[in-house]
This record gives sequence, structure tokens and C-alpha cells, in this order.
Amino acid sequence: MVGKALAAKLAALGHQVTMGTRSVEKEAASAPAGINVRTFAEAAAFGETLISCTAGATSIDALRSVNRKDLTGKVLIDVSNPLVFTPGQLPTLSISNTDSLGETLQREFPELRVVKALNTCNCQVMVDPARVPGEHDLFIAGNDAAAKQQVTKLLHEFGWKSIIDLGDITGARATEQLMPFWLRVFGMYGSPDFNYRILKSPAIVRTT
Amino acid sequence: MVGKALAAKLAALGHQVTMGTRSVEKEAASAPAGINVRTFAEAAAFGETLISCTAGATSIDALRSVNRKDLTGKVLIDVSNPLVFTPGQLPTLSISNTDSLGETLQREFPELRVVKALNTCNCQVMVDPARVPGEHDLFIAGNDAAAKQQVTKLLHEFGWKSIIDLGDITGARATEQLMPFWLRVFGMYGSPDFNYRILKSPAIVRTT
Repeated sequence: MVGKALAAKLAALGHQVTMGTRSVEKEAASAPAGINVRTFAEAAAFGETLISCTAGATSIDALRSVNRKDLTGKVLIDVSNPLVFTPGQLPTLSISNTDSLGETLQREFPELRVVKALNTCNCQVMVDPARVPGEHDLFIAGNDAAAKQQVTKLLHEFGWKSIIDLGDITGARATEQLMPFWLRVFGMYGSPDFNYRILKSPAIVRTT
Repeated sequence: MVGKALAAKLAALGHQVTMGTRSVEKEAASAPAGINVRTFAEAAAFGETLISCTAGATSIDALRSVNRKDLTGKVLIDVSNPLVFTPGQLPTLSISNTDSLGETLQREFPELRVVKALNTCNCQVMVDPARVPGEHDLFIAGNDAAAKQQVTKLLHEFGWKSIIDLGDITGARATEQLMPFWLRVFGMYGSPDFNYRILKSPAIVRTT
């Protein structure tokens, strides 16, 4: 769902998009118009910028299935949260507190420039932030300043106005741990069309 | 710090306040005017409503030191976060993801009616939400509806306008896991005078 929402938005913005999947034939049948569906390895070879939006627990396996040379120097936007699903309970996190999925991906694939982003809201809000009226925030984290600038530019194309840089990739811990809170609010509202805004004292002059 | 800020505010609002501590003589010297400083056991015996604002890791020990009959049926507002401090790093959580301090207190002391509240902002914002301009939210969670109503009334006295009920005490997981995010934003802004607001689509009609 997340991948399809992002692919359709990117295509609508004029980007060329290839989706990677384990199940090429099955997914090709339901892919958004104009989107190529290929293996993870083919998608990684094609993309100038990569977006990881598999289920969090399988992100590493998906990336292990590609040719490492197709990762070298590329920006990878990590949109996933490492959720563990248990029937009858709210999902929990398979990695949290002292580590994060974003950090794990950066450690496992040091040739990538990982930027954690878009993992704090629903996929429809990701690609159309105006679904939630008013000013609200998106958070990014990553070790590479140029990569974060590039991702910020793309997020502006998506319609995001307020993008708060939480620093290096350890900031992924902060945003991934927002997910249990997000799930709780989602359960209460019965709708994913909400997002966060940070209000601050006028004495805080640092703009983000 | 948190206890003193809350005690001073409660006293200013006309409540009678006794602070509990391990170090009565030391703390009495720096207590806000008009606040009694006693042992945890004496404070628990005195209070109609209890507020747990010791360091998260010591909350349970503090409550174990009181007479259990002085807890029976009382509302305990759990303001603490179970932070672990390591030099040179952002604090992490000693309990998280599949459990929380709020739930632990409720399990260990079933005779209490635990309400998790005020743990998502700095103590100066807790007692003076107008330090952060605009509309922003506070979150509560607990198993007992009457206890949450009582706490909500007190929070209104503090100046809080938007109080979002996250359901039963397992909601404490959601708000305690906001702390790593809060610490990250604090580090970035260099000031604790900020807070969260949830913006939602007009189609979400449930009011909180």
C-alpha cells in the first residue's frame, strides 16, 4: 500500500518509477498505471534514489537480494517501521529504544546514504499532506547532509512545507518510537488522517 | 524538579500539599513555601490524590515504602518516564514497547487507580501550558474513568485545555515512548518550551 501510494505520486510528479517486489507477476497486475514492476534487484539497479517501504522486518532481506554495487552512493529513503503484528493487540516494534530500523539499514549497507523520513504518518497523508488541514510537521534523520537536502526537495514536491531535521540517523529511534503513539491515536480516531505539529515558545529562535 | 514545580502550582491553586522524599531534611530546606516535606509513607497517608514524580526507575521502590492501606482506592497520577541515563548519550527507556512504567505501577499496586498524565512535556510547561502559545495537547491514560475525570479536572485547573484520553493504562506505552522523540527535539531546540498538537482531518468527528 505504501509503495503503491508513493509510486503513483512520484509518477504523477513526472518521475520514472520502478517498484521492486518478491512477486512480480502478482504485483504487476495491481500496480498504478505507468509503473514498472520488477524484482528488488532490478528496481535497485534502475533507481537513482531508492525508497524502502517493505514491511519493516523484511527491509534488510529485500536489500540483501540486490547487487551491492547498485546501492553504492545512492540515497535510500527508509519509510518503514519495524512493526510486529500480534492478533488482538496493537503492533509493537521489533527494534526500538537503543536501536532503530533506520540505523540497522545504515549499518548493514554503509554504501547507502539512508534518510529516515515519512514513517510518521499514513501513506495517503505522506503523498498528500493537505489531507490534514493546517500546518503540521514531517521529520527526517540521516548522516549525510546532501542526502537530506535531496530528500527535503522531494518532500517539498509532495507538498510538505515543514520538515524538521532531527540530526543523524539515530534520530530514526525517535520517529520509529512515535509509531505506538500513532497507532493508539489511529485506534481512537478510527481514521489515519491526522498528523503532528510541534508548537514552541517564541523564545526558541532556531528554525527548522 | 518536577515534584517541586507541581507542588508549588498545587499550593498556588489552594490545594494542601505534602511532598514525599527519601531525604526529608535536605529537601525541606529547598521546598517551595508552604509545602510540607515528609517521608513517602507520610505523604501517601496525607494525600487524597497522589502524584508519582520520582525518577521513573525508583517509582516502584518509593511506593513500596508506604503503607499499602494508604494507597487503597486513591488516584495516583504517574508523571514519570522510565529513563536510563548514560553519559554522552540521549537517555533510553528501562521499560518500553511491550510494557510501560504506568502499567507496571498499576500491576504492582492494584489498589491504586493509576492515571498516566503530564509525562509528555517539561515540568514548567506542565504547570503553565501557556508558556507554549497556541493550542496543544496533553494525553492521559488509565483504567478507571472516574479517576481520569478527576485528573482532567485538575489539569484544567493547571490551564490545560485539550486533554486527549488514550484509553486504558496500556496507553502509557504510547506516551512514554514519546520521550525519546521529546529528548531529540529538546536537544535540537535547546529549550524545553515546546509541546505537541495533533491536527486531524475535519472528517474525524470524534472529539476528545
